[in-house]
Amino acid sequence: MISSAKWLNTPGLISLGGGLPCPDYFPFEELDIKVPQVPRFSPFRNGHAHEGSDYCLLRAGKHDMAEGTSMFDITTAMQYGQAHGAAQFLRFLVEHTELIHDPPYQDWSCTMTVGNTSALDVTLRMLSNRGDWMLSEEYTFVAAAEAAGALGVKTAAVPMDEHGMRADGLNDVLTNWDEKERGGPKPFLVYTVPTGQNPTGATQTAQRRRDIYAVAQKHELIIIEDDPYYYLQMDPYTGPEDSPGAAAASPPASHDDFIKSLVPSYLSIDTDGRVIRMDSFSKVVAPGTRAGWITAPEQMVDRYRAHAELSTQAPSGTSQLVLFKLLEDHWGHAGYLDWLMHLRVEYTARRNVMMAACDQYLPKNIVSWAVPVAGIFCWLRLDHTRHPRYGETSLEKIEEEVFDAIIRQKTWLMNGSWFRPDRAEKLGGIFFRATYAAAPFDQIQEGIQRLGKAVRETFKPN
Amino acid sequence: MISSAKWLNTPGLISLGGGLPCPDYFPFEELDIKVPQVPRFSPFRNGHAHEGSDYCLLRAGKHDMAEGTSMFDITTAMQYGQAHGAAQFLRFLVEHTELIHDPPYQDWSCTMTVGNTSALDVTLRMLSNRGDWMLSEEYTFVAAAEAAGALGVKTAAVPMDEHGMRADGLNDVLTNWDEKERGGPKPFLVYTVPTGQNPTGATQTAQRRRDIYAVAQKHELIIIEDDPYYYLQMDPYTGPEDSPGAAAASPPASHDDFIKSLVPSYLSIDTDGRVIRMDSFSKVVAPGTRAGWITAPEQMVDRYRAHAELSTQAPSGTSQLVLFKLLEDHWGHAGYLDWLMHLRVEYTARRNVMMAACDQYLPKNIVSWAVPVAGIFCWLRLDHTRHPRYGETSLEKIEEEVFDAIIRQKTWLMNGSWFRPDRAEKLGGIFFRATYAAAPFDQIQEGIQRLGKAVRETFKPN
Repeated sequence: MISSAKWLNTPGLISLGGGLPCPDYFPFEELDIKVPQVPRFSPFRNGHAHEGSDYCLLRAGKHDMAEGTSMFDITTAMQYGQAHGAAQFLRFLVEHTELIHDPPYQDWSCTMTVGNTSALDVTLRMLSNRGDWMLSEEYTFVAAAEAAGALGVKTAAVPMDEHGMRADGLNDVLTNWDEKERGGPKPFLVYTVPTGQNPTGATQTAQRRRDIYAVAQKHELIIIEDDPYYYLQMDPYTGPEDSPGAAAASPPASHDDFIKSLVPSYLSIDTDGRVIRMDSFSKVVAPGTRAGWITAPEQMVDRYRAHAELSTQAPSGTSQLVLFKLLEDHWGHAGYLDWLMHLRVEYTARRNVMMAACDQYLPKNIVSWAVPVAGIFCWLRLDHTRHPRYGETSLEKIEEEVFDAIIRQKTWLMNGSWFRPDRAEKLGGIFFRATYAAAPFDQIQEGIQRLGKAVRETFKPN
Repeated sequence: MISSAKWLNTPGLISLGGGLPCPDYFPFEELDIKVPQVPRFSPFRNGHAHEGSDYCLLRAGKHDMAEGTSMFDITTAMQYGQAHGAAQFLRFLVEHTELIHDPPYQDWSCTMTVGNTSALDVTLRMLSNRGDWMLSEEYTFVAAAEAAGALGVKTAAVPMDEHGMRADGLNDVLTNWDEKERGGPKPFLVYTVPTGQNPTGATQTAQRRRDIYAVAQKHELIIIEDDPYYYLQMDPYTGPEDSPGAAAASPPASHDDFIKSLVPSYLSIDTDGRVIRMDSFSKVVAPGTRAGWITAPEQMVDRYRAHAELSTQAPSGTSQLVLFKLLEDHWGHAGYLDWLMHLRVEYTARRNVMMAACDQYLPKNIVSWAVPVAGIFCWLRLDHTRHPRYGETSLEKIEEEVFDAIIRQKTWLMNGSWFRPDRAEKLGGIFFRATYAAAPFDQIQEGIQRLGKAVRETFKPN
């Protein structure tokens, strides 16, 4: 009501109305950020930037907007802001979304978030009630199931294969939903991480996404597409000879080629407006920005924003300013695509190092894995039937035994059992999640070698 | 469970476990912030800094912690963080809280928030259920009542006087609480802005706070102390001759004098651990930081943090880094107190300009006000009985008429009726909220002069 009042634009209006503090008292005069220069991003290897990196200094001043030198400045960014984010930065995100996903319906809209966990929290607050169920992959991002649980929303598991959530599995769970047995109505929300899923690293193929979308249409589901790893899609892994040679992964020839190489998002096939897509800067810029955005039908976005106004209010202006200077003022869309292509090359190289180490060091009669095509996780399956005490002891005990052996080898992987939405359920297999996101190459190799020792020690194969 | 595992500290441990991205890929190498130098903060007048301001440049590097040059750096701040905020920054906040409030019980604790609106939202999610009521001042911060409303928590008004919420009024509301009539149980939460309350500008005296605390003890209330204006307590206003002379307001002689001059917070008299105090940087540093903290009994703080982990996750690392560099690395506690004393002088001068203008331009037989002793708001009461159509028309209509006249005078003040927790209730008086926070001095004077014209035009006094 107040913000739309037309008299606010009266020329010469003196405002003693709003409750905004005076920007003169913001104790920040200038902010300089040293960032990589496009397009010469230099590769990182073993945690050290190669020589020859180009950097440049971006400056945000206090009064850049008044002085006409930028569309965003300290005065605006550090003031109270809009729940949807600063208009000038939100525009960049809308343009980027159109460039990559080009949603096939008219009234889609974007609003900024303070990250995907908050975005899920707000979405569930807006759409669900205590006692509702949502669906997710049978191994899922734990914080998602826990965020739902905190709102009294239970999570039902949908079976997966190497391409992630199964469409037939989704259909089965819904078709056979027993309200009495489950103690809640048939779900209308499916939460999925379609690309480089956490923890399995699985990426749904384009066909799988179309199949799941069709199931969603049949059962009138809203799809919550949590997609932080979307741009960490990688080149194919062709074998140990790829690794760790930097030449193995080469960037796409053009931005167009890059965009075409990406598996279509749910948003990009959403003719009905049943997808809430959650994008995050955590994996492609930095998690500490605590900034992301959702794309969904305008009606939902409006409702989201109304919730945000009364809770998170607005994403950090400090983060928005830094992101704006980098993405809009400096890189632009083309430079940002260059950066994303750079990350693709980097993560491909990292993934290849781990795959080659797995090929070399893991006993293949016990450990199996699918080569991840996106994300930062490799999901290792241990054939529990080969464990010497299989049949005498529980899978839980075997998993624990392997975990202890890995820790004795001074290596840490995450137990698969930790990622089940319902941890009380009986374990159906033994998995470990390994990430190649952050460790230097030699540690990835050494870590996998140690894992191999721990598995051999536990399973005692001949 | 995971984070407390002792094997995480194993020397030589190779972690392929966590899901953290590699900081090498954070595209920020250095962050430089130009900030005012202690103790020579120069006064601002009419929106322009005086000549002679001292500034200095603070630099955060990517690897300052590894290099031993700072306790916080880009690598850490831009990574996933703890829900309670970075330990090194939280420590500063705990020390500051102890220095100022020195809570009189043992197990108090602090955790960072993404601002007070979110802090209230999380607090209500943690403590209340749909159908509950909370209590607040009869005119209140609208977003607070709306945040409660969004959670199904209704807000009941407690009568105020010029010192804010009345203790006897609070006792009356609780003593006479009629569950049937109200449709909800007797409240156990009172939400109050005790210092420079929004919108009335009222500040509860030390005695009033003790009286309200005693009522809270009697009725077993939890007090939610939302106190963003705490440090905007001002020197006394002695009359128009004070204004706008800069000499009128002088800083306290010492930090000790300054701290002693502050009215005691609820936290500082909370022997029982029944206060949740919400502090914010919005009014003393900048709202765009979206950062604040709560102080409460450890058990509540732990619960708060568990909620934050599944929703807001952590305050922006970008903001935390900027605040840390400013407050801990540069100013330190003493410098921050200097800054707060500087704000006191500045806001005193601003308030004095508005008070002198009110004295000069407003018809005192119609408009009355109490001189605010804290905050950024002046609450102007219009004697509706003097309106020519009093008795023939509603107070709502008269308020609207005055508002329209003010807008015709090209000035904007906020209608008092907007600040009622229950807007459906009949209006009991006509108020307008004016702020001296941000406008240049001459505009404050001109705005009040225009208000005087609008009131005379509407009330047509002889």
